[in-house]
Amino acid sequence: MTEKEKIFVIGHKNPDTDSICSAIAYAEFKQMDSVNAVAARAGEINPETRFVLDHFGVEEPVLLKHAAGKTLILVDHNEVGQAVDGIDKAEIVEIIDHHRIGDIETSGPIFFHAEPVGSSATIIADFFEKSGKKLSDKTAGLLLSALLSDTVILKSATTTDKDRRIAESLSKKTGLDIKSFGMEIKKVKSSIAGKSARDVIKQDFKVYNLSKKIGVCQLEVVDEEEVTKRRKELLEELEKVREQESCALVAMMITNIIKEGTELLVTGDTKLVEEAFNEKVSNNSVYLPGVMSRKKQVIPKLEKILNK
Amino acid sequence: MTEKEKIFVIGHKNPDTDSICSAIAYAEFKQMDSVNAVAARAGEINPETRFVLDHFGVEEPVLLKHAAGKTLILVDHNEVGQAVDGIDKAEIVEIIDHHRIGDIETSGPIFFHAEPVGSSATIIADFFEKSGKKLSDKTAGLLLSALLSDTVILKSATTTDKDRRIAESLSKKTGLDIKSFGMEIKKVKSSIAGKSARDVIKQDFKVYNLSKKIGVCQLEVVDEEEVTKRRKELLEELEKVREQESCALVAMMITNIIKEGTELLVTGDTKLVEEAFNEKVSNNSVYLPGVMSRKKQVIPKLEKILNK
Repeated sequence: MTEKEKIFVIGHKNPDTDSICSAIAYAEFKQMDSVNAVAARAGEINPETRFVLDHFGVEEPVLLKHAAGKTLILVDHNEVGQAVDGIDKAEIVEIIDHHRIGDIETSGPIFFHAEPVGSSATIIADFFEKSGKKLSDKTAGLLLSALLSDTVILKSATTTDKDRRIAESLSKKTGLDIKSFGMEIKKVKSSIAGKSARDVIKQDFKVYNLSKKIGVCQLEVVDEEEVTKRRKELLEELEKVREQESCALVAMMITNIIKEGTELLVTGDTKLVEEAFNEKVSNNSVYLPGVMSRKKQVIPKLEKILNK
Repeated sequence: MTEKEKIFVIGHKNPDTDSICSAIAYAEFKQMDSVNAVAARAGEINPETRFVLDHFGVEEPVLLKHAAGKTLILVDHNEVGQAVDGIDKAEIVEIIDHHRIGDIETSGPIFFHAEPVGSSATIIADFFEKSGKKLSDKTAGLLLSALLSDTVILKSATTTDKDRRIAESLSKKTGLDIKSFGMEIKKVKSSIAGKSARDVIKQDFKVYNLSKKIGVCQLEVVDEEEVTKRRKELLEELEKVREQESCALVAMMITNIIKEGTELLVTGDTKLVEEAFNEKVSNNSVYLPGVMSRKKQVIPKLEKILNK
């Protein structure tokens, strides 16, 4: 008897938790139909995903550096630019995704299922439910992790009723509380432990050339613990960056995704901030409830002041 | 209260029975979710589809000549080249199909479901079944018609177990026998009534420049009744065409899609046919059991004789 053809289930490059966990779960789903499906990945595992895999004692998918000549099931993407190298010389037999419809074409008909929900994991958990296939506790845990990661604990604008219903069902199955387990995952992602203050600032720092030059970086957190401890160090480094970049003002947005608000840590011409938000800056800080987006909620207010 | 936005459910240009019936059925499916869905079509109704609509007393979908500015659900296609004019300026909110993945891209995530089954109607009937939504007898009849039309009464190479299962279930629901009702539909499609012998020959006539010039046309039938009646007339016309086109041989393939075999009606150098198929031609005719494809089963045999 010849070995059945291997089919690699693989997510996008720079894989996130949804890409990795969805690949593992869907490979399992296909194996139950006697398909020789193997979970794969198109890049290195990030710290959040590492935490999730370790938490459930699941091995990481095999690394596929080049897909030429291979048979693939794509999860969590359907665009050539995001796919593993060699995709143009691979055979794609299925696609499961929750993003926009991209530029992948096939020569023959295949199974392609995309839904506008918060995560690919949501769709795969739903497939398990509808098919009546048995979802193991470990895999349910992986899917819950992916769902909570991609939907920012059900708080992202992409979150649907289906996501909430599936999260509830996976939470019941695994005994994991949605909010506290979600925060555990997000905490790993947002951790600044082991990073220099300079790296924390520079990982997402943008400069805006308004009538005065300003710089704004953003950090997403689930609680302020780590940041509070290093507040003095971060402020000093912000001031150094401001001088080096010749900015009138430098601000760090510490955005709490649970509380849904942002503390603005500022150095330089802090009066600009007071004027823009009509709030008092005290101790280089101002808290802005409801503010989550730099692009939509912070920059426009500063522009209004600096372009008038 | 403002009117809910209209969403047009539409199949491909040159619509066939699957495109029309799937649009009607899926519009009904979406209406049950309180969507203001309207069945539409991107071209004229063909005689087969007209027969089906009349049979179930269902009105034809509205004609959409240009889709710019409209909101669309596409059924039975996912390629710009096959879609209604103005597709590039329309908003696509869903796609249901059973063909290869084509070149349609969207800016945001949408519901896209493609499956390698014999018809789009199969997928939509399955959606009704899985959702528990009530399928009316009329709509079940339309879906059965589309399924049997697209799969050539479950005989095409694209037919899957799912098609057979759904056809069985729709047949039970409507009380329509798969084979006899399927033949009724196909008979309309293959009818040559009202067409001149010249039109019957020329509607699918191809010339091949081998060492001698030959011409082959093909006609698909579910029984030979109409053709037998007009045999003499067709043969005389074939001979006229042969002379006009200066062909050594002209053949008409009368392919019975039910019996899965072809009668070859030939004029000119009939010995070429005898040599190619190693069969006696009598009365300008030879029957070739199992032969369905001009390209794969007829031309290669003639080439072998005429290129040696």
